[in-house]
Amino acid sequence: MKLRVALAQINPTVGDLEGNAALISEYTDQAKKAAADVIVFPEMVLTGYPVEDLAMRASFRSASKKALAQLVTSLNPSIVSVVGYLDESTTGAPQNNVAIIYGSKIAATYTKRHLPNYGVFDEFRNFVPGDSTLVIRVKGVDIGIAICEDIWHSLADLAARKPGLVLVPNGSPYERNKDDVRLALVQKRAKEIGAPLAYVNMTGGQDDLVFDGDTIVVDARGVVISRAAQFQDQLLVVDIDSATQTSTPDVVISESGVEASDSLPPAVAARMSDNEEIWNALVMGLRDYVAKNKFRSVVVGLSGGIDSALVAAIAVDALGAKCVNGVAMPSKYSSDHSVEDATAFAANTGIHFRNVEIEPMVQSFMQSITLKAVAAENIQARVRGTTLMGISNQEGHLVLATGNKSELAVGYSTLYGDAVGGFAPIKDIYKTDVWALATWRNAQATARGEVAPIPQRSIEKEPSAELRPDQKDSDSLPEYELLDQLLTRYVDGDQGSAALIAAGFDSALVMRVIAMVDKAEYKRRQYPPGTKVSVRAFGKDRRLPMTSRWSEA
Amino acid sequence: MKLRVALAQINPTVGDLEGNAALISEYTDQAKKAAADVIVFPEMVLTGYPVEDLAMRASFRSASKKALAQLVTSLNPSIVSVVGYLDESTTGAPQNNVAIIYGSKIAATYTKRHLPNYGVFDEFRNFVPGDSTLVIRVKGVDIGIAICEDIWHSLADLAARKPGLVLVPNGSPYERNKDDVRLALVQKRAKEIGAPLAYVNMTGGQDDLVFDGDTIVVDARGVVISRAAQFQDQLLVVDIDSATQTSTPDVVISESGVEASDSLPPAVAARMSDNEEIWNALVMGLRDYVAKNKFRSVVVGLSGGIDSALVAAIAVDALGAKCVNGVAMPSKYSSDHSVEDATAFAANTGIHFRNVEIEPMVQSFMQSITLKAVAAENIQARVRGTTLMGISNQEGHLVLATGNKSELAVGYSTLYGDAVGGFAPIKDIYKTDVWALATWRNAQATARGEVAPIPQRSIEKEPSAELRPDQKDSDSLPEYELLDQLLTRYVDGDQGSAALIAAGFDSALVMRVIAMVDKAEYKRRQYPPGTKVSVRAFGKDRRLPMTSRWSEA
Repeated sequence: MKLRVALAQINPTVGDLEGNAALISEYTDQAKKAAADVIVFPEMVLTGYPVEDLAMRASFRSASKKALAQLVTSLNPSIVSVVGYLDESTTGAPQNNVAIIYGSKIAATYTKRHLPNYGVFDEFRNFVPGDSTLVIRVKGVDIGIAICEDIWHSLADLAARKPGLVLVPNGSPYERNKDDVRLALVQKRAKEIGAPLAYVNMTGGQDDLVFDGDTIVVDARGVVISRAAQFQDQLLVVDIDSATQTSTPDVVISESGVEASDSLPPAVAARMSDNEEIWNALVMGLRDYVAKNKFRSVVVGLSGGIDSALVAAIAVDALGAKCVNGVAMPSKYSSDHSVEDATAFAANTGIHFRNVEIEPMVQSFMQSITLKAVAAENIQARVRGTTLMGISNQEGHLVLATGNKSELAVGYSTLYGDAVGGFAPIKDIYKTDVWALATWRNAQATARGEVAPIPQRSIEKEPSAELRPDQKDSDSLPEYELLDQLLTRYVDGDQGSAALIAAGFDSALVMRVIAMVDKAEYKRRQYPPGTKVSVRAFGKDRRLPMTSRWSEA
Repeated sequence: MKLRVALAQINPTVGDLEGNAALISEYTDQAKKAAADVIVFPEMVLTGYPVEDLAMRASFRSASKKALAQLVTSLNPSIVSVVGYLDESTTGAPQNNVAIIYGSKIAATYTKRHLPNYGVFDEFRNFVPGDSTLVIRVKGVDIGIAICEDIWHSLADLAARKPGLVLVPNGSPYERNKDDVRLALVQKRAKEIGAPLAYVNMTGGQDDLVFDGDTIVVDARGVVISRAAQFQDQLLVVDIDSATQTSTPDVVISESGVEASDSLPPAVAARMSDNEEIWNALVMGLRDYVAKNKFRSVVVGLSGGIDSALVAAIAVDALGAKCVNGVAMPSKYSSDHSVEDATAFAANTGIHFRNVEIEPMVQSFMQSITLKAVAAENIQARVRGTTLMGISNQEGHLVLATGNKSELAVGYSTLYGDAVGGFAPIKDIYKTDVWALATWRNAQATARGEVAPIPQRSIEKEPSAELRPDQKDSDSLPEYELLDQLLTRYVDGDQGSAALIAAGFDSALVMRVIAMVDKAEYKRRQYPPGTKVSVRAFGKDRRLPMTSRWSEA
């Protein structure tokens, strides 16, 4: 039986039940028009994902169930829709569920059985797991259901039920090379189960996470039938040859049916290069952070250096130049090329630009309190932070912080100074990657016959914080090429000092870098910002999404 | 058999393996001198608790095991020591364990079976659970072991083994009225198991948590035999009548023995009043945050109002007046009594005090950028924050933020302004409780014939942020009596709007307050401070303790 399956690679918003429901309806209608038998949405599409501690609010669970009930009556009844939502167990505990909707009824539900509780995931905190498999029959095809983490574990129990097809809604965040890992996993499970597998993932930014899509369909041998584009909303419609009546289904929706008369060509989107992938993740993450939090514009301090230029270039691609405000804030230690290069960036891109001299503010502090050395350097960064926040409060822009991962990891940053901002677009990007991305983005522009956004001098100049005369990053830090290699192993790879030394790095340098990272890590915690406050009695804060449209009021 | 059990209610430091080991040795020697047969330490005493994601560092697990091995050879071999530490499963996964140490050997280990994963706890993330009970025989008494969360679940399997005594190491954080809940639970489990139960808890501050001690021993009927003082380090030594040879132990340390010749009187410490409890929690939390992070002194902005006075009074009790630096930072909108009351507080307590006029700094910003209304108000708060951070950087004091829970919950606070600080002592205290605690602390002073620290006018004046002429909190907020009732129900009690309205609150007011709380909650997330940055690839930050002595370097 050739089953036509539509996979909705879309971008829901956490807490926006009404908006997400409208999106689900719209895509269901599209799928029906394409003669699809089934449409599958990403994990928890109705509430958005991840909902974090919103799962524990009774009022939110009840709103999710109510929104689902409304959707059941309004969705096109002649197509099977697989819709993720937040439900409750019989004892009132939160569940990460999908509903199988058909004929204006819920034909079945399935509860995610394997809850990830590592890295960015906290699902043991937020959900109780399900304990049963689900197989539904559609046009004679017995379809097994799994949700995201479920397929990272053995699905022997589902395999034993011999489904003719497996559908998997996901909320799988982007990481470098994650697409390769995903594909291999999807292929492995399909072969183990002996059935085609359709994996649908969401797109969009949600707080610190970016979902890259990368929806995949493979056949029972693991061969790719179709694959969606990365970082793009898309309805991927696929004809999947599926064996019929292979199982004893829990629910029969239809015993047999007619195949679509036309035949869809296989569609496998081209893969992006590493730099293109990262660039798209940064742009999508920023665009959604701004839009989903109902900002319209951003403001960023432009030092003439590479970090702030890269952040502003990401913002231009995410929001358009008219929504980006650059502010040069030179001090007496700023080089001549500082304001020149900031001005050149603004001219290249067409963003709004202004220049605020910070010397009068710095002087007023220096005359009121006694400040020397690092304390005096920090005042300059904090005057800049206060200036950006003032402009933000007055004009309504979101402030972007420009720190990169290398300098943040070793604590080369001023709290309440250059660290000020609601979103830090390149906090996960090492300095060497900052240069690589800037070069890549400029080359893309040149190849398209556009003006390269980032001034070449910003890329080539020696990094400096310009907080005292002739200061260079290399006064305080190892060369970035070397530093980034160490950080990649220590911070990302969790390799200890012994492993780093064994890998051939100088032992004094290893200990110096580890000491800097650990000190910075604790300093960030010793000075948790005023904003990270608990409003719980002697407890840590509730873990709620930064970005959400949910409020009871 | 009268078994003599020593319960070490002590204050370990997360990551300080050497210091904690020394503390364990010292208390073991003390217990031996008191002729105790067994000494029990709090949960994970060797590593400190909670270690959060440090559990996932192989180098930290290996350091914990090495420290345990050293302790085994150095502890007094003629007493049974029950010592919590971080171990690994055979597959290398982290475990929350206790070791039973006797005769310079590890006689047995037990792995925590129930992992809390709610509220402040993340143990599913950090540990794998154990799956077996442990009973050891000491002087013929069969002793069952459970760790903290274990006793919040049914211990039917342990009860079935019929131990003659149960020992429970804990890391149980303070909450209001937690002592009543704990006592009832300990009594219930002792009765269910049919054996005496000894519950030992730690003391001390760890990041946002405070451990209050409250070590309890009950007999098999649940009657309290002994109870330690709250918020004090103490070795509680208790004679416990325990039935012998009731079980089939996993390990036999000794089949019988001689009872101690003397007899200890039962010791049940008096309970503190609610205000005294909270005060002690605040003082202990601040003292340990400062000491464990290796600060020696604090700086706090003194507005003449009640919040900053209360924070400074807590700091004086925690650190002594000589370690507290008060800074008045009046603006043109400050009332006359602002600086007078700040000066009076300093005179009452003997803290260091200085006055920094902020008008010149505020004017320099106003002349450089266009700021009106709230944007202009915020500049004043941010100039104060920058001033405190400048003094902190120059002189090395930790900045204390003075926001209370009521104003933080509704967002009546300036990010990077009054929210600046490494620790916010009263962030969990509602405004009405701020007044009550100030009054209580002053009365305590008066009763002891001391000068009351907090000026009466600071307690009585109408709350104002003094950021514009004649501003009052009541311009923007409901009266605190009413606001705090609503916040207690909505924020702490997770009651929804329907429940609040049903409880008789005005529906417009309910919706207004909920909207303020939700907006503030999201604002705090939309502007996560520059400091809360991930150094992980597209992931959230590792969850490490703010306070820890652990570094590989």
